[in-house]
Amino acid sequence: MRKDLGVKPSMYPEPVLIIGTYNKDGTPNAMNAAWGGIHQEDEVYVCVDKGHRTAENLKERKAFTLSMGTYAMMKACDYVGIVSGNDVPDKFKRSGFTATKSEKVDAPIINELPLTIECKVKSYENEELIGEIVNISVDDSILTDGKIDVRKLDPLVYDGFNHRYLRLGECAGRAFNVGKELK
Amino acid sequence: MRKDLGVKPSMYPEPVLIIGTYNKDGTPNAMNAAWGGIHQEDEVYVCVDKGHRTAENLKERKAFTLSMGTYAMMKACDYVGIVSGNDVPDKFKRSGFTATKSEKVDAPIINELPLTIECKVKSYENEELIGEIVNISVDDSILTDGKIDVRKLDPLVYDGFNHRYLRLGECAGRAFNVGKELK
Repeated sequence: MRKDLGVKPSMYPEPVLIIGTYNKDGTPNAMNAAWGGIHQEDEVYVCVDKGHRTAENLKERKAFTLSMGTYAMMKACDYVGIVSGNDVPDKFKRSGFTATKSEKVDAPIINELPLTIECKVKSYENEELIGEIVNISVDDSILTDGKIDVRKLDPLVYDGFNHRYLRLGECAGRAFNVGKELK
Repeated sequence: MRKDLGVKPSMYPEPVLIIGTYNKDGTPNAMNAAWGGIHQEDEVYVCVDKGHRTAENLKERKAFTLSMGTYAMMKACDYVGIVSGNDVPDKFKRSGFTATKSEKVDAPIINELPLTIECKVKSYENEELIGEIVNISVDDSILTDGKIDVRKLDPLVYDGFNHRYLRLGECAGRAFNVGKELK
């Protein structure tokens, strides 16, 4: 039997996106966002509330990085989501993250997060941040035969219905393939 | 060491979203989309190419449902992603899905997919579909103590880098909590 849960801003799966930007003084900043995804062939979307320091940084630098939160760095990923850069100016340092400037955009690559989408701000209005993907940067420690190995990346999934982080499980099947037998 | 992968439209995790709409003749239609997510507090976003029959239906009916693809229905979810309603008019029937009209919006609820976001079209321009969430409908078979049980839902995750479907794994930790010790 179907039940109505009303209006809730959740679905499965949601990502754990760590947005990296530079503050006015050149120090790196990071925040955690679950409302986002691929927007078009070469664009990402993220919902960024205007109250965040990240919002100011996006307007100033017109660039950001989007790293996948990982199980290995779960505490740091959660920390940057519960503490505001407005309240704790050295939030990034306290998280344990370190950063290297991206060679492609004016934003920090978080060294401890091995998969990063480097973006230029295409637009940012009404909390809707659209980024043009300039490059995807990976640490070679998560590659197997040159391809991203999801077991090595071990990315976090956000469960917004239950406020939990989940890990990924087994491979279920090949996309654009397992449905062929219904043809 | 970091390596550049260039511009790719993928991240982890991506959803397996099944968009349900009504065709002009009143029969249900379904398609599979991975580029989407929560857009705002009461909105979803999905990228829907204009060539799809779904695109026409969205303009006509101004409504859709967004169901989470599941492991139990993986073949059907994949099938509706590899076959076009323009080529196979009875695609929905062939998938094995059955539908019940939503009581909230002019779109079909797919009976076999137990978690469904019911939406009105807020806007649909340049392949960017924004839906206003009117209700979330769940089959009570996936609830435990009244809450969504992700083990029972068993939703699919799309791995766009490797064109695979993945299942979810273990709970890693509580969000807005595991990072507190860094405070």
